[in-house]
Amino acid sequence: MDRPVLLTGAGGRVGQAVLRDLGPKYDWRLLDREPLSRDKLPEGTSKDDVIVADITDRPALREAVSGVGAIIHLAGDPRKTAPWTSVLRNNIDGTQALYEAAVNADVEKVAFASSNHAVGHFETETRTPEMYRENDDFRLDGSEHPRPGNLYGVSKATGEFLGRYYYDEYDLSTVAVRIGNLTKDHPPRNYERGHAMWLSHRDCAHLFDRCIQADYGFEVVYGISDNDRKYYSIDRAKDVLGYNPQDNSAEYHFDGTPKDEVPQ
Amino acid sequence: MDRPVLLTGAGGRVGQAVLRDLGPKYDWRLLDREPLSRDKLPEGTSKDDVIVADITDRPALREAVSGVGAIIHLAGDPRKTAPWTSVLRNNIDGTQALYEAAVNADVEKVAFASSNHAVGHFETETRTPEMYRENDDFRLDGSEHPRPGNLYGVSKATGEFLGRYYYDEYDLSTVAVRIGNLTKDHPPRNYERGHAMWLSHRDCAHLFDRCIQADYGFEVVYGISDNDRKYYSIDRAKDVLGYNPQDNSAEYHFDGTPKDEVPQ
Repeated sequence: MDRPVLLTGAGGRVGQAVLRDLGPKYDWRLLDREPLSRDKLPEGTSKDDVIVADITDRPALREAVSGVGAIIHLAGDPRKTAPWTSVLRNNIDGTQALYEAAVNADVEKVAFASSNHAVGHFETETRTPEMYRENDDFRLDGSEHPRPGNLYGVSKATGEFLGRYYYDEYDLSTVAVRIGNLTKDHPPRNYERGHAMWLSHRDCAHLFDRCIQADYGFEVVYGISDNDRKYYSIDRAKDVLGYNPQDNSAEYHFDGTPKDEVPQ
Repeated sequence: MDRPVLLTGAGGRVGQAVLRDLGPKYDWRLLDREPLSRDKLPEGTSKDDVIVADITDRPALREAVSGVGAIIHLAGDPRKTAPWTSVLRNNIDGTQALYEAAVNADVEKVAFASSNHAVGHFETETRTPEMYRENDDFRLDGSEHPRPGNLYGVSKATGEFLGRYYYDEYDLSTVAVRIGNLTKDHPPRNYERGHAMWLSHRDCAHLFDRCIQADYGFEVVYGISDNDRKYYSIDRAKDVLGYNPQDNSAEYHFDGTPKDEVPQ
């Protein structure tokens, strides 16, 4: 990517995981609604590369996307318990504002942070907890319809269909990444579901790197590490994006400590 | 349905088609943001049955749904060219407000007016105009993902997934009806696409009647008459709702006049 890459929600958990590994690789433009402290900026970026603005601030977005080649769009209310008024504004309206700005500025591709909560209601009482376990063969692969588990999940499903529309209408390449459970050095502790949908920091950064590099039209993929126990298929991410994850929650005990016998 | 039925958007085109045939059948409660003139009220209803309120007026909605057994939810901006700010408010926020009120009032089922525009981008350059013709075998059946043709269509897709969520989370029966092209006495004149997705007034009223009567969980169906030329399947509406349409655009010339040889 020759042109700058815009990262929205740069100060958030996913944004920081992306910047930690991909910091030196791209010419970043960073947007967040809070000012970013020095330790949140990758080397080589200065305060001039940071736009402090709400994701629904359309004039600020126009400026932020100018000259940009690709966008990683993470900004939004990240809480699964977020109230409707907040996801309506920050996640739905904010994502439409982002896509609109992208199209008007001739951006090439947008990677959108969707969520496991867009399909949370596949985790029915009859399927759980078996579906969280290694020998269960239930798999979601991105071809299924959303079944949001909460209003936050509804907002993420809407973001996916906004991407579908902007691709169909304007040929803007878009990929929605249904992010699992992001933690850094080990899978979520003592949380079976979290082991099944673990996404390590390095796999997260690598996956969004592939979203910038790969060619695609409209895609929905799952963003998890290559966990032995999983109910999200990562085949589509591998095939279309060239995703090649390094981590696997099976290399850790249930309490999050690494298993000695597995080579790291 | 023993309890009253709430019709939102009662003064609109679809609402009036529903009331014209089903007026005497139910104990109606009517909501519209404009006052309804006498000629828009079915016999047996009085001004007391009408609530004049915006669909995003949550206190008014609470009152409107109180004691109601079923809802036909038609209120919203009906323009395919509606700007984002309008569909965000009237169609997305308004539909969430409606579902929220329905759940809190223990309503049994909601029929939601979705639209052909939720899948408008299936009508690609390579498929059209062949897909509008009788001998083409391309069919959408409701199992496909939305591919909105405009931001109005995005708002309708969101309404569908709101229904999915309120069914999964609260067991509220919901059916999204992707309405075709509604005209009264004949198919749209000189409009091939309109012939393929014609929905006559009597079939429209009958379809929403079935939405009130039938038992279902979460459904997405197409709302068109039994046209010879069609690219929307009505099988699901027949199977699940007992939809039995009477009209067919093939009984009319392209200019909308009836063909003499076909018995009416």
